[in-house]
Amino acid sequence: MDQELNNTPHRRYNILTGEWILVSPHRTKRPWQGKTEESKADKKDTYDPSCYLCPGNTRASGDTNPDYQEPYSFVNDFSSLLPDSPEIKFEKGLLQAESEKGICKVVCFSPDHSLTLPLMEVEDITKVIEIWKKEYLELGSAEAINYVQIFENKGAIMGCSNPHPHGQIWSQSSTPTEVLKKSGKFREYWKKNNRSLLLDYLNQELKAGERILDENEHFVSLIPYWAVWPFEAMIIPKRHLQHIGQLNQEEEKAYAEILKKLTIKYDNLFETSFPYSSGIHQAPTDGKEYPEWHFHMSFYPPLLRSATVKKFMVGYEMFAGPQRDITAEQAAKRLNDLPEAHYSKAL
Amino acid sequence: MDQELNNTPHRRYNILTGEWILVSPHRTKRPWQGKTEESKADKKDTYDPSCYLCPGNTRASGDTNPDYQEPYSFVNDFSSLLPDSPEIKFEKGLLQAESEKGICKVVCFSPDHSLTLPLMEVEDITKVIEIWKKEYLELGSAEAINYVQIFENKGAIMGCSNPHPHGQIWSQSSTPTEVLKKSGKFREYWKKNNRSLLLDYLNQELKAGERILDENEHFVSLIPYWAVWPFEAMIIPKRHLQHIGQLNQEEEKAYAEILKKLTIKYDNLFETSFPYSSGIHQAPTDGKEYPEWHFHMSFYPPLLRSATVKKFMVGYEMFAGPQRDITAEQAAKRLNDLPEAHYSKAL
Ligand SMILES: O=P(O)(O)O[C@H]1O[C@H](CO)[C@@H](O)[C@H](O)[C@H]1O
Ligand SMILES: O=P(O)(O)O[C@H]1O[C@H](CO)[C@@H](O)[C@H](O)[C@H]1O
Repeated sequence: MDQELNNTPHRRYNILTGEWILVSPHRTKRPWQGKTEESKADKKDTYDPSCYLCPGNTRASGDTNPDYQEPYSFVNDFSSLLPDSPEIKFEKGLLQAESEKGICKVVCFSPDHSLTLPLMEVEDITKVIEIWKKEYLELGSAEAINYVQIFENKGAIMGCSNPHPHGQIWSQSSTPTEVLKKSGKFREYWKKNNRSLLLDYLNQELKAGERILDENEHFVSLIPYWAVWPFEAMIIPKRHLQHIGQLNQEEEKAYAEILKKLTIKYDNLFETSFPYSSGIHQAPTDGKEYPEWHFHMSFYPPLLRSATVKKFMVGYEMFAGPQRDITAEQAAKRLNDLPEAHYSKAL
Repeated sequence: MDQELNNTPHRRYNILTGEWILVSPHRTKRPWQGKTEESKADKKDTYDPSCYLCPGNTRASGDTNPDYQEPYSFVNDFSSLLPDSPEIKFEKGLLQAESEKGICKVVCFSPDHSLTLPLMEVEDITKVIEIWKKEYLELGSAEAINYVQIFENKGAIMGCSNPHPHGQIWSQSSTPTEVLKKSGKFREYWKKNNRSLLLDYLNQELKAGERILDENEHFVSLIPYWAVWPFEAMIIPKRHLQHIGQLNQEEEKAYAEILKKLTIKYDNLFETSFPYSSGIHQAPTDGKEYPEWHFHMSFYPPLLRSATVKKFMVGYEMFAGPQRDITAEQAAKRLNDLPEAHYSKAL
């Protein structure tokens, strides 16, 4: 049954959102005559005088970055959300709007302009995880901040306007749509089974094996059964943690290790600095208890066939729902067959 | 209240999906140093011997297109869905999948390779609407087809691999996620008020005026209050129709007229052949009655600031939910201030 589906158009169910995705495994032979992306050489200088994220440089706001040596965070000069928005609720017939408070931050992963996560040392990635943890706890306890979204847009194709290694944090009063979906599914399962949905899923995947990418003492990386993006992946802690604020030191290091290994595989896939958006989904910070939540990090990388051909999430995907060509199992195999060392080390 | 929100980060509610979108009107001043798209000159020949959609040419499948003079549809050579997939249901622990049947078609809008909808004559666009109508009714009554998604990906940036004017139709057994959301909201409102949610919204917008783009006897085009994409627009019939199969001849022509006018405005905005994905949402074809449904066509165009700078729906948008900078009202004003004649006519 399972095997037969691999040659048949089918739908898979996402247990975390309750939504289905369409898989067309027979369609990979389609020729591509459409748009291709530029593939730039990744070589960059360790310091760029025109980069507004490099240590010591002045930003658009007029502020000057300190000469930071460790991961460094600051309030986004062009924040989408502001902490002091007036309280407004608007409702008129079928129109409905309300003001939203928030704090947006930028997190520089390293002072070294030329690096990316896969090229950083494990102990330096650990420091990035520590700053995420600190920000989650601090922002999360700030007034009116009920959810903290940590994410990274990597690569120009993902709307990243500066190659300096960095991510962002947008924190806000309301819980966003994508998080609400997962909250609902976690809660449903918790009520019924008094267990973490994601932990049960993780254990099932560890038994099955075919979608597992990597495993260490505290973390697993895998291609979820319901992956949308061609090489979508997830990093899941083995301990049932609601948020990264609960990570102990050993776990932080294990997280950094698995993060490095996954992103090296990504870079090796098409021998390019692999673009993606990554994000951490975790418990809201509204002061309530969320025993059902199980934090995890997801990677949504757009590339499909090569460094220059991406998957377009357009017409059908926008109006109906996500669609993919290669199966999750094929994607896992492709990544697992790659060398463990970063391709640039062999150049 | 309403006015104050225009300078304040806020959320707006989408009455058709039940989801919120984040609006950051204060953020338009952000400089852009990121990725820019190529802007190709639009001049094309009326016939391209290498185009697999031009009349008389041979496609990848080996089939030859007839010497068509009117809109022409055929089964997609690389269909994502197939009509004869075996019936499979798979469930094992937390993994859940099922086979999906469907028929995918390509619709050539015109034999003329150089055209696009805004450059076509109203009577020729009417013929496109007629073929959509025919396909909706025919596919909709085929066995195992319970939903028919008509859409167009226009422009290379929207994953369109061939500039020949064409759209697609993917029809399938299950009702896709995005359609289900709207079905739910239409039904809720219908049960409570015994009226079309979208008609009531339309009437409220006609009174307010500030988001209306165009109006004729049978159709209105507008920027929805909850627009996600910078210049997202909707075309709504004034008569409460569940699907395009119910359009009469006069309405077809009025639809063609408003479609042409909207897409001319789009082209004029950045003086480029404006990319978008458009799609028609309408009642499922599973044989049940859907009195609550009100068909409409939406346009999701990615360009934000110019012909080369688009809005990226990445990190925050993928993990949290959609976010936009300019308000729906500003977008409507920008489009309304443009000339009615296609910019290329003045060149
Ligand atoms: O069928 P096409 O035009 O080759 O493909 C295009 O539209 C499809 C439906 O929206 C998408 O799945 C593809 O990613 C896109 O490139
Ligand atoms: O804040 P940045 O990096 O300029 O902006 C980038 O990330 C944001 C959050 O995902 C998006 O809203 C923007 O479209 C994207 O270009």
